[in-house]
Amino acid sequence: MNVLIVLAHPERQSFNGGLTDLAVETLRGTGHDVEVDDLYAEGFDPVERASHYPQRANSDYFSPLTEQRAHYERKRLPPDVAREIGRLEWADLLILQFPLWWHAQPAILKGWFDRVLVYGGLYSGSKRYNRGHFRGKRAICSVTAGSPAHTFMPFGRAGNMVEWLWPIHSSLYYVGYEVLAPQVSYEVQSGGVQYREETAFRENLAAMKQAWSRRIPSLAQESGIPFTSWEDWDNDGVLRATNPMRWRPS
Amino acid sequence: MNVLIVLAHPERQSFNGGLTDLAVETLRGTGHDVEVDDLYAEGFDPVERASHYPQRANSDYFSPLTEQRAHYERKRLPPDVAREIGRLEWADLLILQFPLWWHAQPAILKGWFDRVLVYGGLYSGSKRYNRGHFRGKRAICSVTAGSPAHTFMPFGRAGNMVEWLWPIHSSLYYVGYEVLAPQVSYEVQSGGVQYREETAFRENLAAMKQAWSRRIPSLAQESGIPFTSWEDWDNDGVLRATNPMRWRPS
Repeated sequence: MNVLIVLAHPERQSFNGGLTDLAVETLRGTGHDVEVDDLYAEGFDPVERASHYPQRANSDYFSPLTEQRAHYERKRLPPDVAREIGRLEWADLLILQFPLWWHAQPAILKGWFDRVLVYGGLYSGSKRYNRGHFRGKRAICSVTAGSPAHTFMPFGRAGNMVEWLWPIHSSLYYVGYEVLAPQVSYEVQSGGVQYREETAFRENLAAMKQAWSRRIPSLAQESGIPFTSWEDWDNDGVLRATNPMRWRPS
Repeated sequence: MNVLIVLAHPERQSFNGGLTDLAVETLRGTGHDVEVDDLYAEGFDPVERASHYPQRANSDYFSPLTEQRAHYERKRLPPDVAREIGRLEWADLLILQFPLWWHAQPAILKGWFDRVLVYGGLYSGSKRYNRGHFRGKRAICSVTAGSPAHTFMPFGRAGNMVEWLWPIHSSLYYVGYEVLAPQVSYEVQSGGVQYREETAFRENLAAMKQAWSRRIPSLAQESGIPFTSWEDWDNDGVLRATNPMRWRPS
C-alpha cells in the first residue's frame, strides 16, 4: 500500500509525532510506502479565502465552491491544494493523526478539509458517499485525548467519542473513503497538565503506542464503519425505510 | 443585553453577512448593544502555534495548554486573543454566524475555539460545564446549509443537523454558556451551486431571514438545550445513573 499520514500537531516531539514515527517504521518494515504530510511543518494555511484564487471566476462575489470548481477545471488550483490532492490520489490508505481539541480536529486540519476537498473535482452532487471520488481507498483517524477512556463513554463527562469523530468520519465517507474504526489514545496530556503520577503516565503512553503498533498490520484487511448510502435514500434524500409511501400496498 | 456576533464567512455580501446585518438592526432597534466580530475582516489566525507565544514557559517543547495558562496568568496573551476574550466578557449573548462546511464550522471559527478559550483562564479541570467561566451568559449558533431541511433529518442524506452541531454546542457549554437551540437556514447555496429555480431560491432566502428576524426578540427569554452536569457524574466522570453501585440497597 501507499500510505499518507497527515499530521496536525504544533510540536513534532509530541506523542502525536511519536505515533506518526511509529506508524512510518511499522508500515515501512512490512514493505509499504509511506509519506508524512506535516501540516504545521509545511505552514499549511487552513483558511479558505479569496486571496488563494488570483484568477477569479467571479471577482465581485467570493463563493468558495464556485472558485474551487472553476480552478479545478482550469487546472489552476492553489499550489498547496494541488500538492495535497496529488498525495491523496497516490495514497491507498490515509491516516489522519491529530489531538482532539474542542471536540474536533485542530483548525489546521479542519481547514485542510475546507480547502483540499474541492467542489467540482473531488466531489459533486452526484459524486459523493459510496459513489465518491476516493472509493476503493481507506482512511482512519488516529486521535489523542487528554481525559481517560471511561469519561468518553456515552453520557460521560468528556462526551461520547463516537459523536466527536462523527463529523470527520462522515466527511471522509462523503468523498468515498472506507472509514476504519478510529484508533484513540486516551490520557495523553502534553506537558503541564499531567495530573497523573509520572510512572503511570509513561506506562499509559507505552501501552497506547503498543496498541497502535499491533493494529497497524491489519489496517489493509479491516472492515470499515457502515454508513447509509445512495441505495438507502429516496430521490428527496430521505431514508426509504422511513418514507410511508414505500409501505403502501402495491 | 450586550450582544456579540462572531461572523465567519469569507464574503461580507453573503447570506451570512445579511443575517448578521439583520441581527444588528433588529437588536439595536430594541435597545440592545451589538458588536460584530468579523473574523475574516480582522484576519484572525486560527492556527494555535508556538509563534504566538514569544515568551515561552517551556521553550524546548510547545504545549498549547501550558503556554495558554502561563500567558493568561502573566497577562501576556497574544493581542488578538486578549481582544476576543474582552469581547466575550462584555457580551451577555454570543451569536456564532457561520456556514456549515464539512459538517462543522469553517476553520477560522474552529481555531477561534482553539486559541481564544484559553486553558487556565476560561476553563480548568474544576471550572467547566455548569461551573464554567461564562455561566449566566447565553450562546446560539446561526448556521447556513446548502441542502434542504429534510435531508438533514435523522438518516437523511446530508446527515442529522443535531449531530453536526453537537461538538460546537458542547464546546460552548464546556465554558459555561447556556446554549440555545440553533437557528438553521437551509438551502442557502452561494453563487454557482444554485440548483433551484431563481425565484424559489430568493423566496426561500427571504423566508429564512424572516424566521431569524422574528426569533431574535425572544433570545433573551428562551430556555437552553439541557446538558448533563456535575451533579450527574460520579467522581470518575461517569454518569451516576449508569453506575450499578448507586443502586445497592442502603
